Amino acid sequence: MKRRTFIKNSSLTAFGVTAFGLTDSRSEGFTFDKNLKVNEKRIESRIIELSKFGRDDKGHGYRVAYTKGDIEGRAWFIGLMKNAGLDVTIDSGGNILGKRKGKNPMLKTIAFGSHIDMVPDGGNYDGTLGSISALEVIEVLNENKMLTEHPLEVLIFANEEGGTVGSKALVGQLTAEGLKQVSQSGLLMSEGIKAIGGDPDNIQSCIRKKGDFHKFLELHIEQGGILENENVQIGVVEGIIGRIAWDVTVEGVANHAGSTPMNMRQDAMLAASKFVIEVNEVINSVKGNQVGTVGKISAFPGAYNVIPGKVTLGLEIRDLSMEKIEMLFGEIEKRTAKIATDSKTRISFQRQPIVLPPAFMDKELQKKIDTSAKRLGFTTKFMQSGPYHDSSQMSLIAPVGMIFVPSVGGISHSPKEFTKTVDMTNGANVLLQTILSVDKE
Amino acid sequence: MKRRTFIKNSSLTAFGVTAFGLTDSRSEGFTFDKNLKVNEKRIESRIIELSKFGRDDKGHGYRVAYTKGDIEGRAWFIGLMKNAGLDVTIDSGGNILGKRKGKNPMLKTIAFGSHIDMVPDGGNYDGTLGSISALEVIEVLNENKMLTEHPLEVLIFANEEGGTVGSKALVGQLTAEGLKQVSQSGLLMSEGIKAIGGDPDNIQSCIRKKGDFHKFLELHIEQGGILENENVQIGVVEGIIGRIAWDVTVEGVANHAGSTPMNMRQDAMLAASKFVIEVNEVINSVKGNQVGTVGKISAFPGAYNVIPGKVTLGLEIRDLSMEKIEMLFGEIEKRTAKIATDSKTRISFQRQPIVLPPAFMDKELQKKIDTSAKRLGFTTKFMQSGPYHDSSQMSLIAPVGMIFVPSVGGISHSPKEFTKTVDMTNGANVLLQTILSVDKE
Repeated sequence: MKRRTFIKNSSLTAFGVTAFGLTDSRSEGFTFDKNLKVNEKRIESRIIELSKFGRDDKGHGYRVAYTKGDIEGRAWFIGLMKNAGLDVTIDSGGNILGKRKGKNPMLKTIAFGSHIDMVPDGGNYDGTLGSISALEVIEVLNENKMLTEHPLEVLIFANEEGGTVGSKALVGQLTAEGLKQVSQSGLLMSEGIKAIGGDPDNIQSCIRKKGDFHKFLELHIEQGGILENENVQIGVVEGIIGRIAWDVTVEGVANHAGSTPMNMRQDAMLAASKFVIEVNEVINSVKGNQVGTVGKISAFPGAYNVIPGKVTLGLEIRDLSMEKIEMLFGEIEKRTAKIATDSKTRISFQRQPIVLPPAFMDKELQKKIDTSAKRLGFTTKFMQSGPYHDSSQMSLIAPVGMIFVPSVGGISHSPKEFTKTVDMTNGANVLLQTILSVDKE
Repeated sequence: MKRRTFIKNSSLTAFGVTAFGLTDSRSEGFTFDKNLKVNEKRIESRIIELSKFGRDDKGHGYRVAYTKGDIEGRAWFIGLMKNAGLDVTIDSGGNILGKRKGKNPMLKTIAFGSHIDMVPDGGNYDGTLGSISALEVIEVLNENKMLTEHPLEVLIFANEEGGTVGSKALVGQLTAEGLKQVSQSGLLMSEGIKAIGGDPDNIQSCIRKKGDFHKFLELHIEQGGILENENVQIGVVEGIIGRIAWDVTVEGVANHAGSTPMNMRQDAMLAASKFVIEVNEVINSVKGNQVGTVGKISAFPGAYNVIPGKVTLGLEIRDLSMEKIEMLFGEIEKRTAKIATDSKTRISFQRQPIVLPPAFMDKELQKKIDTSAKRLGFTTKFMQSGPYHDSSQMSLIAPVGMIFVPSVGGISHSPKEFTKTVDMTNGANVLLQTILSVDKE
């Protein structure tokens, strides 16, 4: 049935557009029609519907990639995609691809989408909003009997939260080693991919090459508090910041907290505390949007009555410039050497092998997003993305644009994650108008 | 056999001292005879012998109270005590009591001893030295056919490392609640006490009252590095410092480390680090031997890429004066309030229910220990004990004296714990001479 709907749509095209009342996408009226709007109620109700998959008794969401909730949520979503007339396939990486023909089969595809898996005890907007809004664009085009010049493709990436696994596969970055890693579901990545209908044994068959897509667009919640804080409606992402992380080890001498005088201590905890403060001071010492975080700490042996002999910490620094990250780390290293000397401890750094390089969004797309948003009457802000996204991978093979909408309280990866329906709708409308604007090119 | 040896010794006393060549303990020559020395080789070999009980394949010691190693070590030690003619009994708390009659049955008993249980993966000197040296005093008296005026009693306390459980029982401080707690062995305290021959159902039968003992003396390794650092041979303990501990909770807001600008963070880790530094500064801000330690820390959720929303810490402060501890904590609380305000976090303190009050050593005994040591040509230092000991409990019912000898590197509760044989011997000689000096009173 659903498949036939699509065939019907395709047939329409073949028969000629005007006969079915389809607007000519090349006219100015089509590329920006203020009356062409996404359906707020439908977006909201689908967000609620999807949140039920993988939810536990207490209302917490566990739609972790490759688990039952994810598999059921995907099936539900695939159903909607088919209902909307998309030609749905699962690629070897487990990504859901939904294709819609364009008037001109010689043009490259405009792709857009996000992901629907979540972190354990995560939120209902991260990835989900971009996925449901991508489908919403198709629904609006269908309802308005509109056919774009370019073919369209909705991409619902698999296992984004496990390290953009699906989009990595799609851009040819998922290695044999990566397939052997254990996913959050407990399954190996290869087993998980198989569980959602992918084909890990032929993983390379899903690879899309540089130039295969005309553009890729992703709408996403900000996962930070800048837009809300500055009362801005739409964020135009300039880039996704790079990240380097280090394991830090402070070695002092463990000793009895009662019998060791203050001046005879080599207290790894005290040195570690000074380190955390220096990291903060170094990051704040220069202008820019760089961030530095110590999110992990363990003290050994970790008893009330023992001066810690060892403390391990996790440090990460992020910025759009890798050079700046290295410069900041250099300064931290310098100050750390002084802490070590002063506290009679030894402090060492182990750089983590996985370095996330920054991803830059396409300048033209940034302009188009900004223009579309402003025409819709929204305030905008050019900004960077802290978190990684499927767009990071997609930027390796296509010009990419990302649209951010406010996260209430800046909270994400938490049951408290929330984005107001009005903001979701604004974002989806900007996505729609940007796609139409791109299509006009 | 062993029992008969004791009877023989007792009989000797009855028959008259001079007939067996026993020196008169009331003569100056007896109370301080430089030629009366403990046997260094015997102490060393017994330390080595005892270390074999509860030792694993890799040479690490696990003679934890109530376990097989402890039970076997106790049996070996009881054998030695009986061989030395002591009248050995196990009290209801599982303590090993070894009595030796004195010339004057009207005089109160001079008691001395320590414990032979250890912490998991502990050292071979903590408790052990004081126990073996107590027995060594008896051996020397036997070899020199000397009988003291006062009855003597060697006390080998059970489960010191589990919270001075045996000595608590002996002084009437072990509650029904305490008996129900799980010991390090996995057994309930009551089960453990039964396993070593005690009688938890009649725990009160072991109680010794205030005034039952003339004095109690304990030789112990310092478990700190002051004596070694200052090149002093004998420590005269003035008191065992009291301790109050708190659980500290820092509450900020967990957020994505990539998407949350530095100026929008409520970083519990940063606030916790400032807290650790303030604790150190407050403790160092006034004169004295007070110590303050943050030995425990946990960050939540504890991931590289999440700004910690919560950090919990363990704080303890120790001093001979409980008033000083409270004063220092008051200052820490005051400074912490400022950290909380500045960092937009909430910091709260939960005082732990178990407060260890300080224990004061008997002034006269301190002088006697100091004099005995100096007469033997040793350098001395009046000092406090950081760790708790059975002496803490014994001070509730008797005048107590404690002798410290250097710990190499100040290390304790570790396989690296070490005290040189010469220092063990010095300590045992001071114990012997102090007992004889006390006996002269």
